[in-house]
Amino acid sequence: MKVYIVGAGPGDKDLITIKAKRLIDEADIILYDKYMNEEIMNDNKNAEKIYVGKIAGEDYISQDKINELIYKYAKTGKMIVRLKGGDPFVFGRGGEEAKFLTSHGVDVEIVPGISSATSAASFFGIPITHRELARSFSVFTAHSKDHNLDHLNFDAISKIGGTLVFLMARANSTKIAMKLIEHGMDKNTPACFIIDAYGEHARIIRAKLCDIACDIYKDELISPLIFLVGEVADFNLLQN
Amino acid sequence: MKVYIVGAGPGDKDLITIKAKRLIDEADIILYDKYMNEEIMNDNKNAEKIYVGKIAGEDYISQDKINELIYKYAKTGKMIVRLKGGDPFVFGRGGEEAKFLTSHGVDVEIVPGISSATSAASFFGIPITHRELARSFSVFTAHSKDHNLDHLNFDAISKIGGTLVFLMARANSTKIAMKLIEHGMDKNTPACFIIDAYGEHARIIRAKLCDIACDIYKDELISPLIFLVGEVADFNLLQN
Repeated sequence: MKVYIVGAGPGDKDLITIKAKRLIDEADIILYDKYMNEEIMNDNKNAEKIYVGKIAGEDYISQDKINELIYKYAKTGKMIVRLKGGDPFVFGRGGEEAKFLTSHGVDVEIVPGISSATSAASFFGIPITHRELARSFSVFTAHSKDHNLDHLNFDAISKIGGTLVFLMARANSTKIAMKLIEHGMDKNTPACFIIDAYGEHARIIRAKLCDIACDIYKDELISPLIFLVGEVADFNLLQN
Repeated sequence: MKVYIVGAGPGDKDLITIKAKRLIDEADIILYDKYMNEEIMNDNKNAEKIYVGKIAGEDYISQDKINELIYKYAKTGKMIVRLKGGDPFVFGRGGEEAKFLTSHGVDVEIVPGISSATSAASFFGIPITHRELARSFSVFTAHSKDHNLDHLNFDAISKIGGTLVFLMARANSTKIAMKLIEHGMDKNTPACFIIDAYGEHARIIRAKLCDIACDIYKDELISPLIFLVGEVADFNLLQN
């Protein structure tokens, strides 16, 4: 019994790895998520393709149920690919799935993918690091139940320097911007919203931190959305 | 005039993207770096392949010279690929090269790659994020002239939570571990050295932060080396 937990990359079908493509093409069963380009499965006409992401207007399929489902298919002895947007270990819950499967005697192989945490900025010519200006980057999830951001230590975040990347940030970016200013970040710090990078609704909105705190963009924000804060947010290295 | 600045991924030749592979195969001239798998260029027999990384025992080719060299080739009108280990915008200086080239009228396209910042841990079954245990990750360069670590705000780093990843850490990991403990991190925090992930000398050394501060592994450390700190450092999700 073996399951390949595979990263589907940031959305462009040519930005998956050679290994991911080969495994997808050879799979008997593919269990896949929201926020990935489904075209990457098109060359495999024979695989059974099972969607386990969020269904509009309904609850998530619980992680426990996803684990059980993968395990059920693994036991068939067929070739199983668990396909996840971005990288399976970067906020992908690939860790939970791998842990469950190995504890049930299933071999697991992890195939990394390009995470939008780094690549979404590239798409708009923003380097997540840049000599002198951004010598580190930190990646957080902005998503939480009931808009509770207790998992974020704003005192440390506002002082750590470098580029700050908040994933799944549509609902909470205003609150995060306010907290960062409250904790001492300059209100004129460059920031941006990166919407649907590599997707059909790809768009960037560049702004100062204080404009974001004032919520002036709220009607323009759609998911998937990354909120990025730091000097590099002003860059567009693809244009002179 | 156009230059493709392309990420070569973490070292496994099958972990480059489909797009990177296609561009490499079509290139007339490839300028490439240290710490990447040169096999990924093997299928292109006709390209001129120019090494611009560090030469053992000698100085780096300066970034200014690399910029000039890429520009010189770009002006020939041939198809130029600038190939960089990992991702060009994650400590890759791709930003500097892109800026230089666009300011000289050269079109630039960035092709992201998988950075070892996230994937090196995957190789050893460590998820860089994990529900409850690691809800963020921060990536730093541990490299600096004269072992000066002033670019790292240890007060913030020790309090930010999540997984800490220090790249190019062979020389400074002991000092970093000491600083983290000094600034309040638990001396029993799990940590590890990840050496040459996906390469022929791949190895992991797991230890507590205090053991690393005591420098007991110094004779075993070789580059490329990542120093990772956080609860997930104890994980190996590829084994039960």
